[in-house]
Amino acid sequence: MTVAYRGAGFHGFAAQPGQRTVAGVLAGALETFLRHPIVLTCAGRTDRGVHAWGQVVSFDVDAVPSLTALTRSVNKLLHAEVAVRAVEVADPGFDARRSATGRSYRYTVLNRSEPDPFLASTTWQVEALLDLRAMQLACDPLIGEHDFSSFCRRPPEPAGSLTRRVRRAEWRDLGDGLLRFEIEASAFCHQMVRSLVGTLVDVGLGRKKAGDMAWILRSRNRAHAGSPAPPHGLCLWGVSYGALQYPAP
Amino acid sequence: MTVAYRGAGFHGFAAQPGQRTVAGVLAGALETFLRHPIVLTCAGRTDRGVHAWGQVVSFDVDAVPSLTALTRSVNKLLHAEVAVRAVEVADPGFDARRSATGRSYRYTVLNRSEPDPFLASTTWQVEALLDLRAMQLACDPLIGEHDFSSFCRRPPEPAGSLTRRVRRAEWRDLGDGLLRFEIEASAFCHQMVRSLVGTLVDVGLGRKKAGDMAWILRSRNRAHAGSPAPPHGLCLWGVSYGALQYPAP
Repeated sequence: MTVAYRGAGFHGFAAQPGQRTVAGVLAGALETFLRHPIVLTCAGRTDRGVHAWGQVVSFDVDAVPSLTALTRSVNKLLHAEVAVRAVEVADPGFDARRSATGRSYRYTVLNRSEPDPFLASTTWQVEALLDLRAMQLACDPLIGEHDFSSFCRRPPEPAGSLTRRVRRAEWRDLGDGLLRFEIEASAFCHQMVRSLVGTLVDVGLGRKKAGDMAWILRSRNRAHAGSPAPPHGLCLWGVSYGALQYPAP
Repeated sequence: MTVAYRGAGFHGFAAQPGQRTVAGVLAGALETFLRHPIVLTCAGRTDRGVHAWGQVVSFDVDAVPSLTALTRSVNKLLHAEVAVRAVEVADPGFDARRSATGRSYRYTVLNRSEPDPFLASTTWQVEALLDLRAMQLACDPLIGEHDFSSFCRRPPEPAGSLTRRVRRAEWRDLGDGLLRFEIEASAFCHQMVRSLVGTLVDVGLGRKKAGDMAWILRSRNRAHAGSPAPPHGLCLWGVSYGALQYPAP
């Protein structure tokens, strides 16, 4: 199932006791329709405040229902807070998280002095003029397979590798001060996109040089990276499974 | 001063005791900066839930401050809930309401079955497919000077004329199911745009005919019009003062 949601109003994706989460609200609506308990698996666990346009979730059902009826009923129950965009029956053994081969995120900066009430909840406003060329140049060393320890909040459990393969990382100038960072990778570690954007914006402000990016990456030391950019500019854009992409291109 | 705001979170524009209103919040921030009480006059009193992109407000000051400092300080205080987009010193006797010669509104319909969490607070979702040609045809009789009693919530005071001059009324197909109604008039009576959109959507759904619009208008009977469309699809787009338009085109 491909779902979209705004980060505001939820305490992140993953279910947590006593907190209103996307998984909690979505599973509740699905269980009302299916009339049996389900366990949701998601492709990318978004943090509190982070949005999603193409989050993918999987779950087991006792019997396959009408997918049209499921979509309509669940969307009615969710009042557009979370929207079911597409649903299909997966192959046996499919797991939204483990089967995923790539994720893409978008981070949007509003680079101008005037605020915009209609963009405030989905963009990070940076008033000082950013050097977009320097920010783009600083993306080059990110491409390929690297240990991203410098840009990751360490996982709480004594965990595995922080090596990830970045396939694309680029800034787009959308006009009117809107700058969008698009990044695709095999997977992301915790707060990786926000840490990268925070560091790239430091480059854009002249606090760091574009050439610093390579050694910050190599240092594997989080203290060398910039502060994470705020969550509300970030959106999980899509997930790919081999040749399949969600949402469909 | 040209200001933008989202309708959600406010109890409409006009100050009301015990309610959080745009005028209350904006006047509070201006008074903090100016250090003296002010009275705000606005070009169009938006109802609860209605947005504005180009609302114009006027007020008297004891001494003209730095307009740049005023904009920056007030925007800092308002946290992008209300945004000051432009400010200038007006001619003596200028009144944002009485000097205005025209207002334009936009109403956006999301005409598709899938909801969108990112558009839910600024569009009215209508699932059944609308006949846009019929809706456009039904706009024709609105152009010109008419008594709009059929589309107005009567003002509470024993009031004057409900005659208004409509200069433009048209639908635009923005793609992806987004349909936008744009209307310009000398002025609008209470709930006029929402009543017109509710009636036009009835035409689009086949509940009324495009040819019905002329006699609904002539009947001067509110019972003949459709129910008002919900407020969150409506936005006060701009205001004109003779040749001057805000926001600038």
